[in-house]
Parts: sequence; C-alpha cells; structure tokens
Amino acid sequence: MLKRYFPILTWGREYNRATLEADLIAAIIVTIMLIPQSLAYALLAGLPPEVGLYASISPLVIYALLGTSRPLAVGPVAVVSLMTATAVGDLAAKGTPEYLGAAIALAFISGIMLLVMGLLRLGFITSFLSHPVIAGFISASGILIAAGQLKHFLGIKVPGKTIPEVAEGIWANIHQINIPTVLISIFAIGFLYWSRKGLKPVLIKRGLTERLASVLVRAAPVVAVIVTILVTWALGLENWGVKVVGEVPEGLPAPTLPPFDPALWGQLFVPALLISIIGYVETISVAQTLAAKKRQRIDPDQELVALGGSNIAASISGGFPVTGGFARSVVNFEAGAATPAAGAFTAIGMAVATFTLTPALYFLPQATLAATIFVAVLTLVDLGAIKRIFTYSPGDAMAMVATIVVTLLDGVDVGIATGVILSIGLHLWRSSRPHVAELGQVPGTEHFRNIRRHRVETAPGVLSLRVDESLWFPNARFIEEMIYDRIAADKSIKHVVLNCPAINHIDSSALEALEQVNEQLKDAGVRLHLSEVKGPVMDRLTRSDLITHLSGQIYLTHFDALATLAPETTRDCADLSRCETHR
Amino acid sequence: MLKRYFPILTWGREYNRATLEADLIAAIIVTIMLIPQSLAYALLAGLPPEVGLYASISPLVIYALLGTSRPLAVGPVAVVSLMTATAVGDLAAKGTPEYLGAAIALAFISGIMLLVMGLLRLGFITSFLSHPVIAGFISASGILIAAGQLKHFLGIKVPGKTIPEVAEGIWANIHQINIPTVLISIFAIGFLYWSRKGLKPVLIKRGLTERLASVLVRAAPVVAVIVTILVTWALGLENWGVKVVGEVPEGLPAPTLPPFDPALWGQLFVPALLISIIGYVETISVAQTLAAKKRQRIDPDQELVALGGSNIAASISGGFPVTGGFARSVVNFEAGAATPAAGAFTAIGMAVATFTLTPALYFLPQATLAATIFVAVLTLVDLGAIKRIFTYSPGDAMAMVATIVVTLLDGVDVGIATGVILSIGLHLWRSSRPHVAELGQVPGTEHFRNIRRHRVETAPGVLSLRVDESLWFPNARFIEEMIYDRIAADKSIKHVVLNCPAINHIDSSALEALEQVNEQLKDAGVRLHLSEVKGPVMDRLTRSDLITHLSGQIYLTHFDALATLAPETTRDCADLSRCETHR
Repeated sequence: MLKRYFPILTWGREYNRATLEADLIAAIIVTIMLIPQSLAYALLAGLPPEVGLYASISPLVIYALLGTSRPLAVGPVAVVSLMTATAVGDLAAKGTPEYLGAAIALAFISGIMLLVMGLLRLGFITSFLSHPVIAGFISASGILIAAGQLKHFLGIKVPGKTIPEVAEGIWANIHQINIPTVLISIFAIGFLYWSRKGLKPVLIKRGLTERLASVLVRAAPVVAVIVTILVTWALGLENWGVKVVGEVPEGLPAPTLPPFDPALWGQLFVPALLISIIGYVETISVAQTLAAKKRQRIDPDQELVALGGSNIAASISGGFPVTGGFARSVVNFEAGAATPAAGAFTAIGMAVATFTLTPALYFLPQATLAATIFVAVLTLVDLGAIKRIFTYSPGDAMAMVATIVVTLLDGVDVGIATGVILSIGLHLWRSSRPHVAELGQVPGTEHFRNIRRHRVETAPGVLSLRVDESLWFPNARFIEEMIYDRIAADKSIKHVVLNCPAINHIDSSALEALEQVNEQLKDAGVRLHLSEVKGPVMDRLTRSDLITHLSGQIYLTHFDALATLAPETTRDCADLSRCETHR
Repeated sequence: MLKRYFPILTWGREYNRATLEADLIAAIIVTIMLIPQSLAYALLAGLPPEVGLYASISPLVIYALLGTSRPLAVGPVAVVSLMTATAVGDLAAKGTPEYLGAAIALAFISGIMLLVMGLLRLGFITSFLSHPVIAGFISASGILIAAGQLKHFLGIKVPGKTIPEVAEGIWANIHQINIPTVLISIFAIGFLYWSRKGLKPVLIKRGLTERLASVLVRAAPVVAVIVTILVTWALGLENWGVKVVGEVPEGLPAPTLPPFDPALWGQLFVPALLISIIGYVETISVAQTLAAKKRQRIDPDQELVALGGSNIAASISGGFPVTGGFARSVVNFEAGAATPAAGAFTAIGMAVATFTLTPALYFLPQATLAATIFVAVLTLVDLGAIKRIFTYSPGDAMAMVATIVVTLLDGVDVGIATGVILSIGLHLWRSSRPHVAELGQVPGTEHFRNIRRHRVETAPGVLSLRVDESLWFPNARFIEEMIYDRIAADKSIKHVVLNCPAINHIDSSALEALEQVNEQLKDAGVRLHLSEVKGPVMDRLTRSDLITHLSGQIYLTHFDALATLAPETTRDCADLSRCETHR
C-alpha cells in the first residue's frame, strides 16, 4: 500500500552506483537546459523570472518521491504557462502581489484537484478530451504564445492574449520599436533555430556520438543566454532601451501558503480544472511514450497523485502550475536518467543556480527569453495534422479546426470548451445513426449477410436486422423509428429478428425502446425476436421485463431463428444435424 | 415534395363520409375534454384563462395541415405550461402585459426553432435526452405542478416554484386558509379521482362498451366544472373568498406578432430550446406509439415542422407554447379519429366555446381547475420507475434520481441540464472502460474465447485481445495503457493480435492511439496485428497511415493470425485444408 503511493520505496531499493552515475549526468544536462526555460516560462506566465526557478525545484523533489515514470521531468511548460497568464490576467494586473498570489493559488488548487482525482481514481476524466481537440488546442496555443513574443522582439508594449488583440496592439505601437532589441532577437532566434537544425551534424562531424550531440543541442539556449548577457553588459544596451531581466532575488523563498480567499478560489476553479486536465494529459502522454520504449509500467492514477503533489509543492515554494514537459523529459531519457532521482538531482542543480547565478541574470535581455520560447513553441504547431485527420475523418478535423479558430480568436478557455462540446456532440451524433443491415442467408450456409452487399436469400414474413452499434440513448429512438418504418412499409412482415452480435451494451433508454417496440409490434400482429445476444448483454437483460414480455424468442444463432420461423426457406442448410445441435 | 411538407395532400384525397363521421365524433369528445384542460393549463402557466382557449384553436388547424400523425392532438400540456411559467416568471410579474408578451414570444421562438430543426433534419438533437432523464424530469415536474396547486386548494397566496419555496410559502401563509375553497377542492379532487377509478366500471355496468366508457370518463372534469360553477353562483361563494375565473373576453383576438425585443429573445433562447425539445419528445413518443398500433408511418422531421408551425400559430393568435398531449391524443385515438381533420374540427368546437361559453365561466372556481391539473399530473409521477431502472442499471437510476432531486429543489431548467450532463457523462464513463477479453483457442476448433470463461489454449509469445466496444476518444487512452501494461508484465510477448469483430467504429483519437501503440511496440520488439476487422472500419483504415506503418499484419480471421504467428500451437486444427482456404 505504502509502496503504491511512494514508488520510491520500490526503485530506491535497487539503487546503486551505476544508476547514481547515470542520474547525475542526466541531471546536469537537464539543469543546463532548464535554467533558461524556467526563466522564459515565468516571463510567459507574466511572473518575475525567479518564480520560474522556484517552480523547478521542489516539484521535482516531490515527483521523485511520488512519480511512477522514471524519466519524466516536471516543471513550468509553455501551454500551462499561457493558461496561467490567461487565468490570472483576468483577475489582477501584471506585476502586482495579487497577480503573483493568484498564480500561487492556481498551482495550489490545481494540485489539490489532481491529488483528489488521483486518490479517487478519476483519471478517466481526461479521456473526454479527444485527440483532435488536444492537438488543435496545443497548436493554437503554440501560435498564441509565438504571437505573444512579438512584442518582446520589437521592444514594445502590447496588451491582450488573442490574435486580434495582439495584431491590433502591435499595429498601434509599431512606431515605438526598439532597434537594439530587434537585433538581439534576430541573433537569438537565428542562432536557436540553426542550433535545432544545423548544430547536430556539426557536432557529429567533430566526432561526438549522435546521442551526445542531440543532448548537447538542447544546451544551445544557454549559449544564447550567455552571449546576449555579455553583449548587453559590454555595450550597456539596457541604456539603449533593451529590456533586461534586472534584479533577481538570491536564494530560495521561505515556504508560504497561498492566499485563502474564497472569491479568488471560486474564480480560479474552472481555469485550475482546465490546467489540471491539460497538464495531466501532457504528462501522461510523455510518461507513457517513454515507459513503453523500455517496457516499463506507469500507474496513471499515481501520476495524478504525483503531479498533484508537485503542484502543491510548487505553490508552497512560491511557484506557479507545473507539469511534465515533453522536451525536457525526452532529454532526461536520452541523457540516460535511470530513476526519478535524476529529477531530485536536477532540483539541487536549480537550487544552486538560484544561489549563484542570479546576479549574472541582471543583464539577460527579455528578448532572448522570448526567442527561447518562440523557437520552442513552434514545434507545438502542427497544422498538417488537420489534413491528416481530415483524410481519415472530416468530422474530427472540423472539431479540430473549430478548436484552433476559437482558441486563437477567443482565448484558451473558450477554445478548449468548444472543442470538448463539439467532439462529444459529434460522437453522439455518430452513434445516433448507427449502421443497420437487413440480413439474408448466404445460400447453402448458416451465414447471414447484408442484403445490399451480398447475394443472399430472405424468408417471406421475416425481417432480419443487424444493428452495428451498442444500443443507448442517442440511438434508442432511431432504432424504434427504423423498425416501425419497416413494418409499416411491408405489411407482410410477421416476425422481426434483431441480430445482436455487434451490440456490446444496451442502456436503460434502449431497453425502454425495445420494450416499446415489443408492445407496439404485438399490437400490430408482429413478433420480436433476438439472436446472438452477447453474454454480458444477456446477463443484464435477464434482470429486465423485456425477456418475460418478449413476444418472440431469443435464439443462440441467427440461423436457429430462421430455421424456426421460416423452416421451409432455411431447409437447404448444408448440415442440418449440426444446425440442430446448435439450439 | 409538396406532399412531404403538406401531408394533408395525401390523406385529404382519401377523405370520405366514413372518415368524416369518425373525425366529427372524436372532435366532439376531445372538445369537451379540452375546454377545462386548456383553462387549467393557462392558469398553471400563470396566464389569463382565455389564453388557454386561444392556444387550443389555431395550432390544431395548422397541425391538421402539416402533421403526419393521424390521432395526435396538440395544445397546452402540463409540463410545458410549467416550463413556460418558470421561463416567463423570471422575466416579468404575473398579470402584466409583459408576462403575456413574453409567453407569446416564447411560443414564437420555440416555433421557429422547431421549424428550423425540422427543415434542417436536426431531429436527432432530441435523442440526447436519455429515457431515465426524461422520465425523472416528467415525474419531478408532476410533483412540482401538484405542489403548486396546493395554494389554490387552500385559497392562499404562495410565490415560488421549487418545493422548498412552496413549502416555506404555505407554512408562512397557512393562517389565511379559506374554508369554502378547501371544501370545493375536496369535492373536485374526490370526484375527479373517483371518476378515474370508479366511474368506468359503473358505466360498463350500465351497458356501455368499454371503449365508450373510457372515453366518457375523460369528460368527468366538465361535470366538476359545471357543478362547482353552479354551487359558486348559487351560494355566492365568490363573496366568501372563493377565487373565481371572473371576466373572460368573448370571441377570438386579432392576430398579432410577438414583441421583437432582442434582449427578451436572448433571455428566452435557452428556455425556448428546452421547451422545444421536451415538447417534441412528448409529441413524438405519443405519435409513434399510436402510429405503430395501426402500422402507420410518421415522419419525425415533418413532425418538427408541424409542431413548429403549431407554435407559431399559437403565438400569432395570442397563445403560449403547445405540444402533442398524451391523454388527449389517446382519447382522440380511442374515440376513432381517422385523420388530422379531427383536430381541425376540435378547433372549430373550441372557437365556438370562446364565443358562447365564456360568460358561464365567470363563476368557475380556480380551485376546480387546480383539481383538474392535480389529478391529471399525478399520472405523470412514476417513482416506481426508479426501482425498475435500478434493477437493470444502477447508474441510469442515479441519473434519474439526480434529475428528480435537482428539478424539485432547483427548478426545471437546472434539473434537465443536470440530467443531460449526467447521462452523457455516464455513457462516456462506461465507454471509457470497455470490456477486454484475452482470447485462447478452443481446442480442436477455429474458435477463440475469453480465457477467463472457457477452457482454451494460448500460444506462447502471442497475446490475443478482443475489445468489446468501438474505439473512440473516451477509451483511446485506456486501450493504449492496457496494451502497454500487458507487454510490460509479460516480457515474453512478441506479438499482440487485436481481435476486432466488436469494433464498429474507430475515431481519429483511437487511430492515433493505435499508431502510438504500433510505434512503441515496435521499439519494444513487439509486433501489432489486427484480425476480423469489419468492412466499414477497414474501409476507413485504408485511408490512414496505420496500415502502411503497421508492424504486423491484418488477418481475415483470428485463426489465420494464430496459424501464421504460432503454427506449432495451432496445428491441431480439425480441418487444416479449410483453414488454408480462409486465408
């Protein structure tokens, strides 16, 4: 039991010198990658840069105690930082203590939610986000984030989060553009973009292994950070209008509790839920992908607990919402992290950074951090997915496009809500019109097939129907109408046989519909039969009135039904003795 | 085409003297039943009594032109009247022109919605109300309506719609109780209740046929109306505090358009939608039930058009929302109505009533109308359904109980919304955890069955799984996790074969999950195969990348898969030559 909630008790016992070495190397690499990222995502969330550092220490320690994924690295990530900025920006002005307090409360509420969901095993809630909706939301968030960095590149002030707001803001303030800032931005974006594509081949040419090269490429942002700090300091660019990070408090803040203001908590409830769900979906996807590669297991419910604990820890140490990051987890994995202890060592690295590096960050241009974000989030944008999904399912693609468009035009909350409603509506609509085949017998066999697709024989007076969908409330009325229409159209029908091998479930609405059909057909002189009802479905039906009131029979096979109801047309069965034994 | 939208062009051609006679008799009986009902439901909706009469004239004429159900009788009904009172009561004070105007606008908006849904063939929207939710909502509405009549029986004023409000109101005003009103109420309720149970046997004993007796019983409210009018008039009870209907304008109002106030329309949008959906569900259920009894067809989309037209007509003639009534349609059917013309004749009867009977209604006690409502709505309350549904499906029963409780405590809008969200959530939850069976071969056959339920043989290194549910976003992650867990638990697995006969659909989320599984399994040295994929599912898969990237094969039968992947364990097939031909 204790081992379930504290996976460290399992992997900790096998800990040895080899795993320690592997974890230490991974931790050093991830720390180098994480320093600029955590500063950048704090900027994206509208928070002071040191908050990003705080959010990259205690959550990693807690995750090391509670997490079931070995390479997962938690901390601030782009999409959740954007969602934080949106949620908190609605409640307080940037730079105020209220803004920071709301962000800390957001992490706390989200942590509690995740923890409760984990302990109550409610992880399935996240399944209601369909893939096209998540993909669309992530792409749109990437575009929103990238667009939000333009102001940092130009050195102007632009309020607003949605694309129309950003476009309008840039248009209105374009005359205040700051040339040194633009130059730094061009260098940083260019260098980072090149390092993603061109640096790796260069490193491999110099004799590095491919794995080491791909890991080192991840350290490129640190190079950009160092170069731009030095240039800004040497040329005194902060006096030429280049915005720098400025004073960053040294060391760690004392643990505090978030503000317990019921009104604030009420306003943060829905954003915290969305952040929890989106954050968890991102975490679990990464964790699962990396675990499957090594045939390791993760426990999705325990991951909720671990992520919840990480967010509470982030909150208490003055940070904002965190989640499992894709890029840094992959780096951790590729750098050879063997256990979650790598995360704890990374936390130590980050803590050392807050004590030693903060003075050096004074001259770091905000444009460099914006460039780090810009280049990172462009990988989130995958508009080609629309076309891929459209080829397979135009409806799903439409849900994705709607999510993207609404997110870009109206923000993240409305965007994700639109996507969820659309995808559930779409599915209900699909299941409301199931495929129904009228069946006929393949001559000389016991097989029955769709009369529209095969050469088959039907028995006069008997209507055989196969519904290719579970029966439940969205299609209950459809089934009823369909059967009534058939018997009204052909007055010779005396028996309706529902062939049920594709019916995995019958809910009580559909049961009511079948009872109605049974009664109405009885009045109209038609009997209702079922055939090939699955075991679990039959188990439930025996607890209902339908079985006792059914005007017809339930047959094990459809052939049995036809052999009984229309023996003269089914007598040409190849092997009658076998047919008999089936009954 | 014209015949589709005007079914009268079809049945009108066959009209003859026999159908005319049948329709006339039915119309007379329905008219007698409808007069007290229409007054009572106007009272329930908080409107002047004559509005109930207006709503029982023009809608019947329009339905006769547009409707596809022969015996359906439209007009004011209990649940929709309650919903009207709730919707309009939030916007204006009872008795004001604004209140009446809002009710008229509500009918108009609801009419337009139904018409648009009919023309765009959006009837499926109503399928999203599950049976337990509708049943719970109708029962709770019945209780709310019955509770709302108590004030009329006691002769006191009680504001509020929910049970706590009504209970508090009665408690606060109980000292103002009016004894003559209570006496009239006791007589009216007692008589109406007895007439439902005891009158029919008496009439049959007197030599009437059963059908005629059940029709005549429906006229009992008229007797109660006449008796209480006479008593009130003779004893001058209106001077003793008995509230009477009072002055009712004679004749019909001039046609008018509803107030076109954008703010009002915005506020009425959601209530109008709920009224449209609930009204349509009630209409279509009655229409379908009665049509199936005679193997007649109704067109659900055209019923939307007809109901929409009826509501627009109700609005233009100064009435409030109408729908197909269950009780009156059954009476119409039992009285022998042959065509929708019976409705048109009923409309003439109601019009005559507005010209001749209104002076007589002056002394009609409101308590009598309340008694009519009270006895009628008690038949809507079916709490026994909770137990029946619980036996079959505890989850569905919980959704029903929640709908009832929330409706009683918080009103109709919140109640129905709660029910819809719960039932959709419940279904998503169910499909998020589908039944998955690990399969083994029944020795000596080509059949594969659940290893937990049957004595079967499995092949080493091959994992056979059958998912008994379509694959879509709520279960996409579950499937992925389940497969990863299996291959992590058993490192000897080299092949995973998904047996797909129960999969009716794979949406793009599930496709993405399968692609992920395929990639991760490939990395882990495991191949993914599919077997017995259905035709329509296969058609779609061929448009996806999965097929080209699949590490394994797609087999026509599961036996083929095992015969290929583990030939040494499947060689004991009874008829190998046949197995070969299957491939």
